[in-house]
Amino acid sequence: MTDWITRAREVAAQLAVDAVERDRANKTPFAEVQLLKDNGLVTLLGPAEHGGGGQTWETAYRVIREIAKADGSIGQLLGYHYLWAWAARLVGTDAQIAAVEELYTKNNFFFGGAVNPRDSDLKITQDGDELVYHGHKSFSTGSKVSDLTVLEGVLEGTDDHIFAIVPSKQPGIAFHDDWDNIGQRLTESGSVTISDVRVPWSDAAGYVDRKFQPLVYNTLNVPTIQLVFTNFYLGIAQGALESALAYTRERTRAWPYGGDDKASATEEWYVLEGYGDLQAKLWAAEALVDRAGAAISPILHAPREDLTPEARGEVAVLIAAAKQRIVDTGLEIGTKIFELTGARASATKYGLDRFWRNLRTHSLHDPLPYKRREVGDYALNGRLPEPTWYT
Amino acid sequence: MTDWITRAREVAAQLAVDAVERDRANKTPFAEVQLLKDNGLVTLLGPAEHGGGGQTWETAYRVIREIAKADGSIGQLLGYHYLWAWAARLVGTDAQIAAVEELYTKNNFFFGGAVNPRDSDLKITQDGDELVYHGHKSFSTGSKVSDLTVLEGVLEGTDDHIFAIVPSKQPGIAFHDDWDNIGQRLTESGSVTISDVRVPWSDAAGYVDRKFQPLVYNTLNVPTIQLVFTNFYLGIAQGALESALAYTRERTRAWPYGGDDKASATEEWYVLEGYGDLQAKLWAAEALVDRAGAAISPILHAPREDLTPEARGEVAVLIAAAKQRIVDTGLEIGTKIFELTGARASATKYGLDRFWRNLRTHSLHDPLPYKRREVGDYALNGRLPEPTWYT
Amino acid sequence: MTDWITRAREVAAQLAVDAVERDRANKTPFAEVQLLKDNGLVTLLGPAEHGGGGQTWETAYRVIREIAKADGSIGQLLGYHYLWAWAARLVGTDAQIAAVEELYTKNNFFFGGAVNPRDSDLKITQDGDELVYHGHKSFSTGSKVSDLTVLEGVLEGTDDHIFAIVPSKQPGIAFHDDWDNIGQRLTESGSVTISDVRVPWSDAAGYVDRKFQPLVYNTLNVPTIQLVFTNFYLGIAQGALESALAYTRERTRAWPYGGDDKASATEEWYVLEGYGDLQAKLWAAEALVDRAGAAISPILHAPREDLTPEARGEVAVLIAAAKQRIVDTGLEIGTKIFELTGARASATKYGLDRFWRNLRTHSLHDPLPYKRREVGDYALNGRLPEPTWYT
Amino acid sequence: MTDWITRAREVAAQLAVDAVERDRANKTPFAEVQLLKDNGLVTLLGPAEHGGGGQTWETAYRVIREIAKADGSIGQLLGYHYLWAWAARLVGTDAQIAAVEELYTKNNFFFGGAVNPRDSDLKITQDGDELVYHGHKSFSTGSKVSDLTVLEGVLEGTDDHIFAIVPSKQPGIAFHDDWDNIGQRLTESGSVTISDVRVPWSDAAGYVDRKFQPLVYNTLNVPTIQLVFTNFYLGIAQGALESALAYTRERTRAWPYGGDDKASATEEWYVLEGYGDLQAKLWAAEALVDRAGAAISPILHAPREDLTPEARGEVAVLIAAAKQRIVDTGLEIGTKIFELTGARASATKYGLDRFWRNLRTHSLHDPLPYKRREVGDYALNGRLPEPTWYT
Repeated sequence: MTDWITRAREVAAQLAVDAVERDRANKTPFAEVQLLKDNGLVTLLGPAEHGGGGQTWETAYRVIREIAKADGSIGQLLGYHYLWAWAARLVGTDAQIAAVEELYTKNNFFFGGAVNPRDSDLKITQDGDELVYHGHKSFSTGSKVSDLTVLEGVLEGTDDHIFAIVPSKQPGIAFHDDWDNIGQRLTESGSVTISDVRVPWSDAAGYVDRKFQPLVYNTLNVPTIQLVFTNFYLGIAQGALESALAYTRERTRAWPYGGDDKASATEEWYVLEGYGDLQAKLWAAEALVDRAGAAISPILHAPREDLTPEARGEVAVLIAAAKQRIVDTGLEIGTKIFELTGARASATKYGLDRFWRNLRTHSLHDPLPYKRREVGDYALNGRLPEPTWYT
Repeated sequence: MTDWITRAREVAAQLAVDAVERDRANKTPFAEVQLLKDNGLVTLLGPAEHGGGGQTWETAYRVIREIAKADGSIGQLLGYHYLWAWAARLVGTDAQIAAVEELYTKNNFFFGGAVNPRDSDLKITQDGDELVYHGHKSFSTGSKVSDLTVLEGVLEGTDDHIFAIVPSKQPGIAFHDDWDNIGQRLTESGSVTISDVRVPWSDAAGYVDRKFQPLVYNTLNVPTIQLVFTNFYLGIAQGALESALAYTRERTRAWPYGGDDKASATEEWYVLEGYGDLQAKLWAAEALVDRAGAAISPILHAPREDLTPEARGEVAVLIAAAKQRIVDTGLEIGTKIFELTGARASATKYGLDRFWRNLRTHSLHDPLPYKRREVGDYALNGRLPEPTWYT
Repeated sequence: MTDWITRAREVAAQLAVDAVERDRANKTPFAEVQLLKDNGLVTLLGPAEHGGGGQTWETAYRVIREIAKADGSIGQLLGYHYLWAWAARLVGTDAQIAAVEELYTKNNFFFGGAVNPRDSDLKITQDGDELVYHGHKSFSTGSKVSDLTVLEGVLEGTDDHIFAIVPSKQPGIAFHDDWDNIGQRLTESGSVTISDVRVPWSDAAGYVDRKFQPLVYNTLNVPTIQLVFTNFYLGIAQGALESALAYTRERTRAWPYGGDDKASATEEWYVLEGYGDLQAKLWAAEALVDRAGAAISPILHAPREDLTPEARGEVAVLIAAAKQRIVDTGLEIGTKIFELTGARASATKYGLDRFWRNLRTHSLHDPLPYKRREVGDYALNGRLPEPTWYT
Repeated sequence: MTDWITRAREVAAQLAVDAVERDRANKTPFAEVQLLKDNGLVTLLGPAEHGGGGQTWETAYRVIREIAKADGSIGQLLGYHYLWAWAARLVGTDAQIAAVEELYTKNNFFFGGAVNPRDSDLKITQDGDELVYHGHKSFSTGSKVSDLTVLEGVLEGTDDHIFAIVPSKQPGIAFHDDWDNIGQRLTESGSVTISDVRVPWSDAAGYVDRKFQPLVYNTLNVPTIQLVFTNFYLGIAQGALESALAYTRERTRAWPYGGDDKASATEEWYVLEGYGDLQAKLWAAEALVDRAGAAISPILHAPREDLTPEARGEVAVLIAAAKQRIVDTGLEIGTKIFELTGARASATKYGLDRFWRNLRTHSLHDPLPYKRREVGDYALNGRLPEPTWYT
């Protein structure tokens, strides 16, 4: 794992150079995705036989985190990519898994998606042996900078949800470039119109003879992606603290009034105590996130049939807890660092607000109080969360 | 007082219309200062005999707050203006007070300043009966949109600090338009170069026969401006909560998963509880800020000679406490409102992040831990804060 | 008001002498109630024409607070007494009010009660012109040390709740001395059995011709007593902070390791900052509690017919907010003071834990989350709380 | 490790039966120490060749935690015992280590100590080949219920601190039974007088030819015991949460007013959310405590000469962080559980306040702000904590 983290740190160092400028420019991250590809991070989970890294999710989570330290958006894009690259494993047939993994690994393909289930679903019609997707999705993270896009729709006249992987660059996929939010600005999460996008029935993920074959394993999509979130949140929080520490070391001036009278801000009581408090909280959140990663990774790599609802539920609860801790902790860090860096650190050029903005934006994906409730229901009533398509 | 608050609310309603757009455009607020003038808010504290409002500071603080609800920057500009318009009372002679109050009230003049004492001081040389100011100040809030600017410098060969009021539009005052910070973006707080700006010795505030006549009252500058800060912080926090409440009423969707199952977000448990928690905290902070305003206002309007160091110190401690409460509370509100409005409220067009950015930026003016220490030193040791030029 | 607060402080000083010992001994507070009587505090709200203080509720709340600083239990007893002494005004007829106020004021009588509505109600049967109360109440605060007890029951065969005031010392009232809780230990809140306690129909509070005449004013019982709670919570929190400050001044030793290196604990950074933080929070809570007292007191003293549901609801919301703030703040103070006094302050003899125990115990009276919800429902939906008999 | 945790849980189940009563009775825990002995927990770290468990510190920490869930005092006694049983390894010679480990393991001896370094040191005089200890220590945790006591003193005419292990039952050791604090009541931490307690020079720990042979390893005493603290704090917090959950399941009544309207408290929104919040925080603290245990355990069991100041310092910082998190989290849990169990849970018989009292008492051992500072100094300046005898 260590080698991959080292490599991720090197990539992160490159991303950090102009992260503040790119954030302000709201720049589409073609070059940044290419950087991930060039360093083998895109195929980290891909089979070694096709040139992939053959790594585990535990490593993938750590890599997401390292990238997010430098740029939360790119960390999110990479994390979503891992989930979508795993979509075939989550819901596909063995043949589909083999085909998708070979395809994306050999070609170093990057994934995007248009599957947000809080939105209205795409409609699917049949045309002979083909499924035809139509509709509009409000959010399609990463699709614009991707090679492959995961679509999800409902087959006309049925309640069947069908996932399929299609080339991102095709006339039927039109991006509206309307993602303009206060954080995670480079994730290209804008809306998309899908018109007459066709896939053969044989690509309908997990369908055999036009029937879906359900497994408990299918429902790992939510805990897996929630821990992706959790890891780039953690990376964002770590990036915030590290950036602030560097700023204080280099620039913060000692406060001349009122009693501490140190020659350097790095010796002032409240600066030391303040950083210690944030660091301890961050380490605790990190330890729990790591624990969650160590719990779900073997499950994801074990035979799919082995997974029980109990094992799925327990890891989902643990991930729900880890998410809460890093969101609360990260927002506190994103806010408090300014009190330790001082007034001049609020200049736009330092971009120290982007950590709060990034974390604040994405952590709204689904309401935290429901996550607290989920953990509480488990602690109090031993009840496991009902799998849904979203949280 | 009520009439003035009503009028301030009407002005605020106009400011609110394009507050988000102006913030993003970093637009110099000439029109907004004119709006304050047109509504009599600039001369609120000016003597009635010259056409001013003849109001108390208690009213002024409330007006600042109302304006800041709609636009934190304009609230700050107005608050700083009040302090500078009061500068003659703080340090001037009776004749200077009379002259300055007549001048600015009759002409509806707006004040800016270039006096930040953490910066290096301007240098003053003498040229016959004139004082000549030279130098550079890193921050000169409001000066660019003002008619009059307060300068502060040190007279060559002495330790004498001399304040003077000069016309803002003159060749010797050059603005560098370099205020680009994450919040309070429209305060025109950029740097300024002062070259050969002349004032007669008779305008040196508080100097009689070229000697300064000190009063305890002089040291009210710091608690008075700190309570200005506190009031626009409170306004920002109130604006944040009100904006979020309005958003939730109009747009937030009920959460369909996980157990509360309400038809409307406005009935969801966590939304109601979350807003109740923030509202109660904000009311508590407001009650303390009002208490501080009720304490300092009579002091500011009483005969200057009456003020004792004890009375000055006690009100300074109370203001230090009020400031702590609204900063902590306001940052919590600025962060938590998003959890109650939901994911789509992070779109840039709603500008709900500006409250956190505004409060975060200005609340760094001086470190809060020193304010806590100040209150603690009073509670524990009965010690009053040593007056300084800054905090 | 000032004189009464001074007098309350003198009483509090006497109560403070052995407050720790009495708490440990769980001693029935006959002497302490006598002390309140001897100093005129029991008849504070009683009509001046009968020798009462003729004071307002605003003063009463402040007096409760002062007493609670020294002894939370006695503060609670006095506050409950005020509410029960006001019960005739809340629900009685004009004649009943006159009679009750004369009775208790002339005789310096202390009230207890057995009316907890979460418990099962007493049963009332009719016997000619008499109402006969029977049953068991789990909690009867203060009744054992009182002269008069307020009973509440439901008339057999009806849904009519009937309040009546009866002598506390009578064979039909049997105390079980089973209040043994972690805090507010001296409130004599144990259970009571009521057997064949008789009152004439004419004493049925608010009944005219055996029909209750409802007024909005009746529903003030809940906000009035909730603000009683809030004030003794505030007193408890103030007592905690003052006791800790005194301890630190007298006993806390400077910490010899790790970097602050002050000669005295009273100069250590974290001690000063810690106390400043707690003091500022307490002042904010106090300002809101005072605001609530200033809001409800004129309502309580105005003509009963004047009260509208809107005015009742708004003051109830304000009190709900004040309660939240002092509970959260007080528990934080009750916990954090130990970090500022040091390890030896945990000796039982100093009794510094009684503040946390007292506040923790009574603040469970009704769940705070519902209070937050109430405030949130008002802020978000403009909805006023539905009056109930309890919260 | 699992077997030992299971065994510890069985012991804990027995301790839990009358934990509340023993706490109130302040009962000297002879029987409870015997229970630890009978189950092999006292010799857990002792060499297998002498009949000990031969376990690692990682297991010892987990065992302390399990015991502390049921009874914080017994958890503390066991943890201190482990540290003192390790004292020979920390500072002794190889021969002393061998002798002490054989002695205590074969005899199933329990350790106490009288070494608190914030107190004045014992004095040591020489009498031929014997060292003679005299003096008074304010705290001597566990010594009264122990077989062996660790003494520490300063040799007359030198600055040499000398540790020695002596039999606890001897005329020269007189216990004053004066430990009466609000928490950790059964730890027998009262004062002790040492008169003419003799040990041969050969038992002076770590002295060879009457000279101490220092190693970096000696300074592990502080991080090792701080992680002992941290683990029984964690156990106390876990015990608090588990006790509250059990209470809510069995006894808490649904709240009938104000809007949630559930049939059972176990379904109420705020109860579920509240427990989820506390559980998530506790899991995060636990994950960090476990991380610290996994870090220091191999260091403690490695060759003593291998330890570098850097490795010592880094693990000390990690432990300082873990301690902060569990103290803050545990106090929050100890306070908030009451809001989830309801008013009747404040009855003394349930003893739910003992968790807060236990944690509050011992967590004052050394000021947390200095621990935050220590972590901050490492994060900001890369500085490792200076070893002291205490923190």
